[in-house]
Order: sequence, then structure tokens, then C-alpha cells
Amino acid sequence: MEKTHNSQIPTESSHKNEKEPEIITDKNQMRKWSRAMRSQGKTIGLVPTMGYLHEGHISLIKEAHKHTNLIVVSIYVNPGQFSPTEDLSTYPSDFDGDIQKLMAVPGGVDVVFHPYNLYDYGNSGVGGDGEVEKKGAVSCVEERGLGHETWVRVERLEKGMCGKSRPVFFRGVATVVTKLFNIVEPDVALFGKKDYQQWRIIQRMVRDLDFSIEVIGSDIVRENDGLAMSSRNVHLSTEERKKALSINRSLSRAKFAAEKGQVNSGELRNMIIQEINEAGGRIDYAEDLIH
Amino acid sequence: MEKTHNSQIPTESSHKNEKEPEIITDKNQMRKWSRAMRSQGKTIGLVPTMGYLHEGHISLIKEAHKHTNLIVVSIYVNPGQFSPTEDLSTYPSDFDGDIQKLMAVPGGVDVVFHPYNLYDYGNSGVGGDGEVEKKGAVSCVEERGLGHETWVRVERLEKGMCGKSRPVFFRGVATVVTKLFNIVEPDVALFGKKDYQQWRIIQRMVRDLDFSIEVIGSDIVRENDGLAMSSRNVHLSTEERKKALSINRSLSRAKFAAEKGQVNSGELRNMIIQEINEAGGRIDYAEDLIH
Repeated sequence: MEKTHNSQIPTESSHKNEKEPEIITDKNQMRKWSRAMRSQGKTIGLVPTMGYLHEGHISLIKEAHKHTNLIVVSIYVNPGQFSPTEDLSTYPSDFDGDIQKLMAVPGGVDVVFHPYNLYDYGNSGVGGDGEVEKKGAVSCVEERGLGHETWVRVERLEKGMCGKSRPVFFRGVATVVTKLFNIVEPDVALFGKKDYQQWRIIQRMVRDLDFSIEVIGSDIVRENDGLAMSSRNVHLSTEERKKALSINRSLSRAKFAAEKGQVNSGELRNMIIQEINEAGGRIDYAEDLIH
Repeated sequence: MEKTHNSQIPTESSHKNEKEPEIITDKNQMRKWSRAMRSQGKTIGLVPTMGYLHEGHISLIKEAHKHTNLIVVSIYVNPGQFSPTEDLSTYPSDFDGDIQKLMAVPGGVDVVFHPYNLYDYGNSGVGGDGEVEKKGAVSCVEERGLGHETWVRVERLEKGMCGKSRPVFFRGVATVVTKLFNIVEPDVALFGKKDYQQWRIIQRMVRDLDFSIEVIGSDIVRENDGLAMSSRNVHLSTEERKKALSINRSLSRAKFAAEKGQVNSGELRNMIIQEINEAGGRIDYAEDLIH
């Protein structure tokens, strides 16, 4: 599962190193760029992010370079996947730092798509002739606002695991990814397997809705001490940071035990729960994949 | 609201008359055709239908000719929008007759997309590397089958009116239209305003999910005696056919009354209900649009 990064070693595409990405904030401009590139026979890889980039994101970009001519990184903190009690307002951001990090990736990235609000349609954003809305009439089943109301639901996979404690999370992810797919029109899209359930949901959605996009999942990238990289790690205190190591440690030990012959998944699960509890962690869920 | 059709009068595009459409059943072949045409700078109009075509469908095709170079008509009875108690098994069909009708349209159509089953993904249809499914492992939240589970919901507009008596109808429509959009990749899509709620839902979905597709609604086409054309009219007995005229008659009378100064929408609604009831009709709903 570990992945080594040697960003100092030049790669094939290092001739493009320190390339400054084009920053596009308008969705129509973004689509226009993609279509112009595609008409030249270029292929496009999309790496959707919420910014505050780390080596996990960088690994996705490096992987993308193996598949497509051009790379679009989207940086957008999607309000649609946060419930009111969650951390939308404190989600970390550092746009300038992100751009520096992207310029340092071998091969760089071609476009950073950084929209302000993907849910603001104004008054002119109505599909079709919009005649009715222009006249101010609304149907009896429609609120007077022009709010977003369309959600993509992956009904089985969105249930359980992270879906239990975050009821709107996966519908928000599936919906914003659909929007990004329709705006960027990529050939390939890359997701980290750190967010495993999310990755599976996007794969399933792409299949079920017939998107012509290859979804690639990349392995977790970890800090030297084993913690999975995450933008939110910045919020951890020294104490919490230490406790968090019990997650990877417990999983590694369970993996080792399984390799040594422990085939009872309930026992493996209990090992994990015990180790995390002993480190002072509070477990949201620990589930065995096969049952 | 009425629209006159003079199909005998040659139009601009009548030089293409009696053109035989290409029939495509495979979704990958369909997308390949669209992309080849787009790469030649051609624009594509999509008219989604469930077949058993009538003058209402033909009017959509004629309208499409005003907007795009090429026309794709899909003929697919979408099981996703029928509940088990509805008439999927008795929905009328006449594929050969449909092709004849399409050939008679001035300008014809370029492709008839006629897939067998848009929900059968086989074992190879997994997006991405599909590694997990190849190994036979499934997540604890996933059934062992590979069934379709992704649905597009337009949450406010799908409620009420037809949504009350047909709970899965609009999610089925929005989902299959998303699939058709992703397969055909049209520039313009046409829908009949006979299915007014459906038309509004598709418009909203296109806006909310950032599809780069213009949605055009076309006016209702009626039989000479005022009945709105519908494939399902074939199921009406002589008696039911006669009762059904009360729908248009009641709406016309309410419109006339409104024009003469009746501004109480409740009164107008009661006029409609009374007229249909007197004709022996059973009303599913009668709602005023503005309140």
C-alpha cells in the first residue's frame, strides 16, 4: 500500500517542470478549454481536490500523467457535501501554496479549475428557454428560489460506513463530481483510495450513468510514521496526531495476523477496535469488508 | 398551444427526404458516431422517445432540424421509470412502423438509437480498474449483484402532480435522460410540453448538473378533436376516447374564462374538475400553477 515518491529524480515529463498552470474560474471557460484541447486530439485527466494539497494529491497528478496528455486539477471546497454541523467553514485552504506545489510536480499541471460557487445559477442559468421563470411564474411544487435541487444518489454504496455519520456526504460528492465531469469533460479522473467508499461510489456512478470516463484509484500516501495524508491532519494537536497513528498500526497488525492465518474477520475487527481504543481513539465504525 | 403540420409542403431540408436512418443498438457505437460527427464540426440534436411514434414526436424532430445539423432519435422503453404496477409490459411498440414514419419526416433523421437494455452492465462494465469485483469481494454495504443503483433526483420538482401517483417515475426519467445524454452527447435535446412536469425536471437537472445541452420544449400536438397525442391513446376504448376530450375542453374553457376576467384560480380549478367529472372522468390531480 505504501508508495515511494522521489520527486527529485527527473521523469520523462520533467522538461515541462515548473510550468505555471492556467487558472480558470469560469465553468464555461473551463469547458471551452477542454473542447479546444480535445479537438486537437489531446486527452484530459481530472484530479478533483478541495485544495490544501499534500503528497497524496501529488501522487494522483503523477499517476494522471501516465494516462493523459493534459492535466486539470480542480480546487473547490464543495459545500454540497458538508452538513450544517460539519467543518465547511474551517476547512483549510492555501491557494497560493497549492499553486507552488503544483508547479513543482514533474510535468506540472495544465489548468487549475477554481470556481467560486458551482451552485449559483443566477437568473439566467435556466436550461432551455426559461420562459416560465423569466415571467416569474413558478409551479405549485416549486419554491420561489432558484436553488439547486438535483442530487445524484448511489443508493446502496452510499449507505453504511462513512455514510452513517455523514448522511449528505456521498450525495454531495457524487453530485459535484457529476458537475465537474460535465464541465471539464475529462477522459480519465483520479481519486485516492484513502477515501475508499468514495472511490467505489464514483466508479459505480460512472458505470450506472454511462459517463465515458475512466476512474482510476490511487493508493494511500502516508507520512513517514504511517499516518495517511489528509488536508485535515493540520487540525490535529500533537496528542491527537499521536493517537491517530493507532489507525494504521491496528490495520497493519490485523493484516499481519491475517497473513499468519487468522481468518476470523470478527477477531481481526476486534483487534483493530481494541488497539484504537487503547490509544484513546473514538471509533466511528470498524467493519469487515467481506461477510 | 395548437400547432399545424403541413408535412406535404416541402421544407428547406426536404432534399434529404426519405433518408434511411442508421440504426445503432450499442451504446459505445452510438458515442463513437457522435464524437466522429462532432469532430467534423457537426451539431447533434437528440429526441428521446419510447417509440410508437405519433405527430407529437414528429414535431420534435422538425423542431430539432431548426437547431442542429444531425438528429438522433432514441427509441427505448425505459424500465427505470415504471413501477411494478404500471404498464411496462403493455406499452405499445411498432419499431418498423416507427422507422417508416421517421423516413417520411422532411430531412429525416440520421440515427435511431435503439438499445436493448441500458441497465445491463455485465461483469465488465465496472468503471475504473474493477479490481475488487474481479476478485469477487464485495463491500459490506453492497449486494452481491451488480445491479444499477445510481439515481438522479430532482427533489422539489419531482414531488407533487404526476409524482404523487407515480413515485419512481421522475427519478427514472431523470436517470435515463442522464444516461442518454452521456451516451449520445447531444448539443440540443427536445421534449414535449405535453409532459410538462417532465420537461421542467429535465431543464432543472441540466442546469443543476451542468450539462452542456440546450433543452427545448415543444408545444402539445393534438388530434383534430383536441385530444393531446400520446402513444398510450391506442389503449383507449371508444368510450374512454370520448371521455378524454373533456380534459382539453375543460382547460380551454378555463382559459377562456380567465381571459374574460375570472382571476380566482380556485374557481378555474373547480370548473375543470366539474367538467371532467361530468364527462365521467376520474381526476388524478388538478392543481393551479401559481399560488
